[in-house]
Amino acid sequence: MTAADVWTPDELARRCAAVMWADDVASQQLGMTLDTVASGTARLSMTVREDMTNGHGTAHGGFIFALADSAFAFACNSHNERSVAQACDIVFAAPAQLGDRLVADATERHRFGRNGIYDVRVTRDAVVVAEFRGRSRTIGGALVDVPHVQGDGDG
Amino acid sequence: MTAADVWTPDELARRCAAVMWADDVASQQLGMTLDTVASGTARLSMTVREDMTNGHGTAHGGFIFALADSAFAFACNSHNERSVAQACDIVFAAPAQLGDRLVADATERHRFGRNGIYDVRVTRDAVVVAEFRGRSRTIGGALVDVPHVQGDGDG
Amino acid sequence: MTAADVWTPDELARRCAAVMWADDVASQQLGMTLDTVASGTARLSMTVREDMTNGHGTAHGGFIFALADSAFAFACNSHNERSVAQACDIVFAAPAQLGDRLVADATERHRFGRNGIYDVRVTRDAVVVAEFRGRSRTIGGALVDVPHVQGDGDG
Amino acid sequence: MTAADVWTPDELARRCAAVMWADDVASQQLGMTLDTVASGTARLSMTVREDMTNGHGTAHGGFIFALADSAFAFACNSHNERSVAQACDIVFAAPAQLGDRLVADATERHRFGRNGIYDVRVTRDAVVVAEFRGRSRTIGGALVDVPHVQGDGDG
Repeated sequence: MTAADVWTPDELARRCAAVMWADDVASQQLGMTLDTVASGTARLSMTVREDMTNGHGTAHGGFIFALADSAFAFACNSHNERSVAQACDIVFAAPAQLGDRLVADATERHRFGRNGIYDVRVTRDAVVVAEFRGRSRTIGGALVDVPHVQGDGDG
Repeated sequence: MTAADVWTPDELARRCAAVMWADDVASQQLGMTLDTVASGTARLSMTVREDMTNGHGTAHGGFIFALADSAFAFACNSHNERSVAQACDIVFAAPAQLGDRLVADATERHRFGRNGIYDVRVTRDAVVVAEFRGRSRTIGGALVDVPHVQGDGDG
Repeated sequence: MTAADVWTPDELARRCAAVMWADDVASQQLGMTLDTVASGTARLSMTVREDMTNGHGTAHGGFIFALADSAFAFACNSHNERSVAQACDIVFAAPAQLGDRLVADATERHRFGRNGIYDVRVTRDAVVVAEFRGRSRTIGGALVDVPHVQGDGDG
Repeated sequence: MTAADVWTPDELARRCAAVMWADDVASQQLGMTLDTVASGTARLSMTVREDMTNGHGTAHGGFIFALADSAFAFACNSHNERSVAQACDIVFAAPAQLGDRLVADATERHRFGRNGIYDVRVTRDAVVVAEFRGRSRTIGGALVDVPHVQGDGDG
């Protein structure tokens, strides 16, 4: 086996993300960018467009949720086990406005059995816009064919 | 005072909804329709478009959330007290597919002080797609000028 | 087969509850009473004792949660499929005081696959003290041996 | 002013905790110990007693919740602003058994306006038993009279 046959957990995460991103029409159409992904984490960004605002001139909560939900999806699928959202909750801490660049950082809190808990913070510069927590469940199947992965103890 | 000066709670709800809908660009752009609204309740519908799907051919959870969140917004603003979402949670019970017509029914569970709790069920025909619970908070101010409202004990 | 061999869903629920209650030391020690149980629902009551209060003279939230959680457990196990709590959330709407008699009413919102969603309202007379939502998951196994049950379509 | 007149945020937290603990009958009666407290954080422990178990020989979820809720209370009151729980959610990751020593670690995630979000992890040795998130709200009033506090920017 050569070095080329061995992926680190972070490389695996990037390959899973590439597969997901390629056909994630929804996130692409919302103008999201996939900034970084690593084992158990992901960062996505999105700018609030006019068609995302409501009558108060602020972003509709659904789009803030969508950004957080996408970050959650990339993080919970980073171990190459197909996973779906079971349940999510979001607390809205500050409004987002037209033109704001929102950044969602997803981190893994805990995995047990087929379940995962992920926290996502959505920020605009230094301001916290929302705190999201997602619960995932693996559904069987892999995203990519893996030659061999190093050191992912519970992968 | 003539009868024309008196609104029922449901009529008030419809007038509040009309004001909100007029400038709710986001819900309109997502193709939602405001089917019914009454005091403490609202029903909205939306068809899953291609730009709402992800790579698995299913609706991105963010759009299901957005539909539920809009129904919640119309229900919690139906008493003519401007209200915003504090926090929401959603459980995904079944996937939605391209072309599905989703219906979100919001009902009021409890109001206390400036807080409200609303339950929203999202269905596709007889199938439950998601169960959503939203918590609102009034922020002061009214949506419409009211001549007089009948019988809304806690309005 | 005689009539004695046939249980209604509500009778099944009561038999499941009897088995659970017999060894539910915790609920008994907290002074709870199992008032009613039927298919998908349960009502339990509890009086706030001095050892349940905190320094502000009000009931510690943990005991309000415990009452709601027990009602949830009886409701979600009423179909004779052993079930456990996956996740719960609670909103505290009004404080409970020493001596208050609290009543928790659990109702079934939705069942899908091995999952269930139950809503529990905790009241003190006409006042809502808390709104609780529990999510259950069946773990395999039955509570009682059943001769035959009528009409429980998804049992 | 002398050095004795100046409290660090952590010292303030400990003094607030001492006031709370003195009359927190519920936490004391449950056998909890207040292990550490600092600005925005608290650790409490509790051993699962027989009267906390249910018929499956495992701890009733209400007591796991109560431990987490107490840790949350000490953390969110550590800034000397009286705070109460608005809403909490808990995910049960692994059962706890009679005799288990449970440790709850509360950390502050975000404060905004009168609101706070706190995460509490409950563990038994290296095993995560539950993940709890609490949302607090300040209600006005202080726990202790403060001469002067250093460096608590948002206190």
